[in-house]
Amino acid sequence: MQQAIAVLDSGVGGLTVVKEVMRQLPQEKVIYFGDTARSPYGPRSAGEVRTFTRQIVDYLIQFNPKMIVIACNTATAVALDDIRERVSIPVLGVISPGARAAIKHTRSGIIGVIGTDGTIRSKAYEHALRLISPHIQVYSEACPLLAPFVEKGLFDADRSQEVVEQSLKPLVGKPMDCLILGCTHYPFLTDAISSVMGPNVTLISSADETAREISTILYHRNLLATSGHLPIHQFFCSGEPELFKKIAENWLKEQISITPVVWQVPTII
Amino acid sequence: MQQAIAVLDSGVGGLTVVKEVMRQLPQEKVIYFGDTARSPYGPRSAGEVRTFTRQIVDYLIQFNPKMIVIACNTATAVALDDIRERVSIPVLGVISPGARAAIKHTRSGIIGVIGTDGTIRSKAYEHALRLISPHIQVYSEACPLLAPFVEKGLFDADRSQEVVEQSLKPLVGKPMDCLILGCTHYPFLTDAISSVMGPNVTLISSADETAREISTILYHRNLLATSGHLPIHQFFCSGEPELFKKIAENWLKEQISITPVVWQVPTII
Repeated sequence: MQQAIAVLDSGVGGLTVVKEVMRQLPQEKVIYFGDTARSPYGPRSAGEVRTFTRQIVDYLIQFNPKMIVIACNTATAVALDDIRERVSIPVLGVISPGARAAIKHTRSGIIGVIGTDGTIRSKAYEHALRLISPHIQVYSEACPLLAPFVEKGLFDADRSQEVVEQSLKPLVGKPMDCLILGCTHYPFLTDAISSVMGPNVTLISSADETAREISTILYHRNLLATSGHLPIHQFFCSGEPELFKKIAENWLKEQISITPVVWQVPTII
Repeated sequence: MQQAIAVLDSGVGGLTVVKEVMRQLPQEKVIYFGDTARSPYGPRSAGEVRTFTRQIVDYLIQFNPKMIVIACNTATAVALDDIRERVSIPVLGVISPGARAAIKHTRSGIIGVIGTDGTIRSKAYEHALRLISPHIQVYSEACPLLAPFVEKGLFDADRSQEVVEQSLKPLVGKPMDCLILGCTHYPFLTDAISSVMGPNVTLISSADETAREISTILYHRNLLATSGHLPIHQFFCSGEPELFKKIAENWLKEQISITPVVWQVPTII
């Protein structure tokens, strides 16, 4: 039985990582958990997000995955170290891959970051960027409306343009040469974000870059799947499965089956 | 005393990795060894290249580095596994980072590779690409004239255009969307290669991508330098130091000091 990569998110955002894993690592099996019943994570306290992330990891670990990917920037910002201590397999977050890619890309040393309230408040990107390159200048902006917009399936350019314009207003004209999409929901809005920021600002998708780093870590740990077969992925969600299924199939361009999960633990919703 | 990243190459090619390490990881100290006395490695037998690589690693290991980077595609193709067994610190080659970056980039699934005779003959890129993504189509071409040209310092666009045109002729017009510069000497010739291949073919530098992966592996192994200070790098070369110094300072845009090394072991030159 092939060991899978377990990917989790507050909702549908982590599907942007899954899509890139499917493209960059076509032999890898993915098990995905979208915590749609408790989405969005952005406005929640760090403690709550840590508890939710632990619950999902405890659920996923029963499938004996070879790696856990916290495909949610908010959860990465507050729960990555905690989960790394909890399990013995590699755990990847989505923040440091995006930070490394932005450092590789930038020529001006000036980088923009957008994310949820929780991610921006944590200053996790500033920390990840300056840990490596102390003189990087960062403009960051919380865009709390964007992830919930995507969760509702409203990410076509027509409907999202206005909310994207409003959200990015404070960053337009700032002298950055790249902008980190510091929430895995934002690649759904790439066209609108790109048209607002203009051609001189390269968008760095934390989702795409994380898929690349999953590939790197699997290679260096001798964990790459090399069966030659296309795997069958598994999807779980804690909320209403129909909207999740619709968004997922539209985004991944393939049919999927979803297993609904009802939290049996006492939890704050 | 800060532990360094040890970088080795047949000559000046690995300086393209060093330049990117200096840019992407400004706090990391580098120890560089260019085996200019025995360059080029491209036409040599696999056995010879393995012996030379071992000798350099044995030399560098005395400085207690935290990582070894085989910044030579020819040596990576034939000696990476051997060196990994020989030392207990992480050893990175330059082939799989370039392969992963090309897979991330390509939309057509058709990728070009140029390298030395030794690299192309080894089929190391085909292997690295298809290990991850079995249906990738690869056009590869040995360009034996290019690395020696760079070693002589003849890499300005005027002088290199003709030899680059001749070398790439078999690849021009092939339906690839990216071309892996599968020799660390080739980023010296980026302008000429880019003008020959045209705007629809993105160049993937194995050097730039390796620097990015050095950053990834240092982070995941908790080995990142975080002193806040700029380090002083060290350079060694086995051949005539003056030309090496001239090329290195011109490429790195900073002054360096070089320690010449004379091989004391019996060796084939």
